[in-house]
Amino acid sequence: MTLADQPPAAALVFQTLLVHGPLTRAETGRRTGLSPGAVTKVATPLLADGWITELGEPAPKRATGRPATLIAVRAERARFIGVKVTADELIGVVSDLTARTLVARRAVLDSRDVGTVVLAIARLVGRLRAAAGAEQDGAIHSIGVTISGDVDGQTGVVQYSPFLNWHRVALAQLVETATGTPTVIENDVRALTVTEQWFGAGAGLSSFALITVGAGIGCGLSIGGRVVSGAHGVSGEVGHLPVGGSDRTCTCGNTGCVEAVASTHAITEQARQATGDPGLTITEAVRLAHAGDPAVRAVFTRAGHALGLAIASVANLIGPERIIISGEGVASYDLFADQIRETFAAQAFGAAAECDLLLRPLPFEEWARGGAAVAAQRLFAPTK
Amino acid sequence: MTLADQPPAAALVFQTLLVHGPLTRAETGRRTGLSPGAVTKVATPLLADGWITELGEPAPKRATGRPATLIAVRAERARFIGVKVTADELIGVVSDLTARTLVARRAVLDSRDVGTVVLAIARLVGRLRAAAGAEQDGAIHSIGVTISGDVDGQTGVVQYSPFLNWHRVALAQLVETATGTPTVIENDVRALTVTEQWFGAGAGLSSFALITVGAGIGCGLSIGGRVVSGAHGVSGEVGHLPVGGSDRTCTCGNTGCVEAVASTHAITEQARQATGDPGLTITEAVRLAHAGDPAVRAVFTRAGHALGLAIASVANLIGPERIIISGEGVASYDLFADQIRETFAAQAFGAAAECDLLLRPLPFEEWARGGAAVAAQRLFAPTK
Repeated sequence: MTLADQPPAAALVFQTLLVHGPLTRAETGRRTGLSPGAVTKVATPLLADGWITELGEPAPKRATGRPATLIAVRAERARFIGVKVTADELIGVVSDLTARTLVARRAVLDSRDVGTVVLAIARLVGRLRAAAGAEQDGAIHSIGVTISGDVDGQTGVVQYSPFLNWHRVALAQLVETATGTPTVIENDVRALTVTEQWFGAGAGLSSFALITVGAGIGCGLSIGGRVVSGAHGVSGEVGHLPVGGSDRTCTCGNTGCVEAVASTHAITEQARQATGDPGLTITEAVRLAHAGDPAVRAVFTRAGHALGLAIASVANLIGPERIIISGEGVASYDLFADQIRETFAAQAFGAAAECDLLLRPLPFEEWARGGAAVAAQRLFAPTK
Repeated sequence: MTLADQPPAAALVFQTLLVHGPLTRAETGRRTGLSPGAVTKVATPLLADGWITELGEPAPKRATGRPATLIAVRAERARFIGVKVTADELIGVVSDLTARTLVARRAVLDSRDVGTVVLAIARLVGRLRAAAGAEQDGAIHSIGVTISGDVDGQTGVVQYSPFLNWHRVALAQLVETATGTPTVIENDVRALTVTEQWFGAGAGLSSFALITVGAGIGCGLSIGGRVVSGAHGVSGEVGHLPVGGSDRTCTCGNTGCVEAVASTHAITEQARQATGDPGLTITEAVRLAHAGDPAVRAVFTRAGHALGLAIASVANLIGPERIIISGEGVASYDLFADQIRETFAAQAFGAAAECDLLLRPLPFEEWARGGAAVAAQRLFAPTK
């Protein structure tokens, strides 16, 4: 049996237990809108095949004194590997069915050549398998690889990845061949949005946006419990909103993009110009700004202003309950936090300003976990 | 019986028949994911109470020769009144359950005072009732009033309407009291998006955006068959995306908003400055631009550029299958159509440029019909 063969009600019960469990059958019914009989009907084969389990009995209910058994997802029923690909590093994890991280490893990438990256992924998968004691066939159900750019999760093709300079790479098939394990791929920010929706700061919200600030500036959107994927594979490209207010040329070729003033690379370049030091690093730029260097501080203020406008644009267009701000650039968040909040408050339209802005640093292992969560998601929602 | 008392499956069947009917029970099952037995079970009380009807038999199926009965929504089962409120006019329609317009009437508004507007709505409702032969109680199921601004459809309160300068007006209750008929309210662009989703250029699409250009610049978003309403009541405020590239002050108090350069009012003001004629009307501005006046043409080009950036922002963030461009400003669309398309193509990120841009003029009666559709929608999806 695979979960994908089960009726839609089974996927609904399973996903509800995954995010909110353990629950009684009655509470599962209340949350899914299914009758108690329907819950029992779909739960029976899931119990028989070990996808869910009964957890003994909770404390008696106050009113009747009659206890009710809790049901929960059996986390150990399947394991997944998630890999996040950056321009110079691979980050991998092994996780269980509830996306709990069991093992994590990293590997340096010394080339962005497709073949080299695929082999490096296969080697990292081998190390993760060994570390998790999961060398035998079937011990890992599937692999989820996440990568920035225009990624078609349905066909498994990276249409375009600016950082790796890849065009139309059938990455899922290549990794599957190299590892011998079924593989899915997804845009990295969308994958992280899936884990935030299920297990993170987006759980239980009607809608939220996740904005990531770092080498690129990305955005995942969750509306009504579904991550928006875009009819043509593109969505959440907040980095290419034309609110940067600068003539600097973006990686996409346009001017005015947020990414052209607020990505790590853009901040570093602008700080180099401001200081006249062509070898300045982002770490040194952050240090100079903290030390009060006015020219470098101005670079961060301009970036914060562009990010505030971008975040307000998301709030004005979508009206999410919460906007989570994350990404490796968050390490220097205190340098532009005030500017982001000030600009956001000024540009948010009416009640859109009530949107909760939440700063949430997430290490790359969390992004890799997003890959594992996407692999797990395909198990019971194969067409998303 | 009301439709709202029916189980969720009944609402699903009813909505599917509304948009795609007439259908056989088998086809209804295929489109809703329900079993044939489940379709029959939910259809029976709907048939008994006259919400749906059987349409006789279609041509025999080729393979088996066995005919199948079609089922369809009974359009005449309920009638609704929709009213669109603008700053100087009311536009009203009577429609049937399938949002077909039966009667349409307009009324001039000579004041924006709440009491005056409510009484004018009540008088217009009376005229519409008389014209439709629907004077007796219950002949009109409910009224849907639509208005631009921050409208809370759940509580029936207009939080803020810039054009009427209204703050926290309990409009649904006021109209209900004045007319004696149950009343719902909704943001006008969202209501128009509902009719486009069910019966218009958005039918059958996985996602679309409707951008309206006129006195204001609005945007309705439909994702996965649902119109996005915003967690705090605000969404689709494309007019307040800060991509206008101008220091002109917007009605919202900010500079740089699209609305500050591309609304009818903004174009008129800029054309007055360009020509030095303080009495120039929008009609004259359009005429001058058509005649080749370079300064006035530049005003439309700037507006088209701002709209192109805004439309690209929607495509980059949401990735809709189609973006429908409508609104009274579309009358002068040929003046900035090329600029909109050119800017959109340049700013759309990767495959987002594949989004279909569709020009679609919709008269105000279509907007009023949106109000009737929202009233009908509450009948079977009371919590949206």
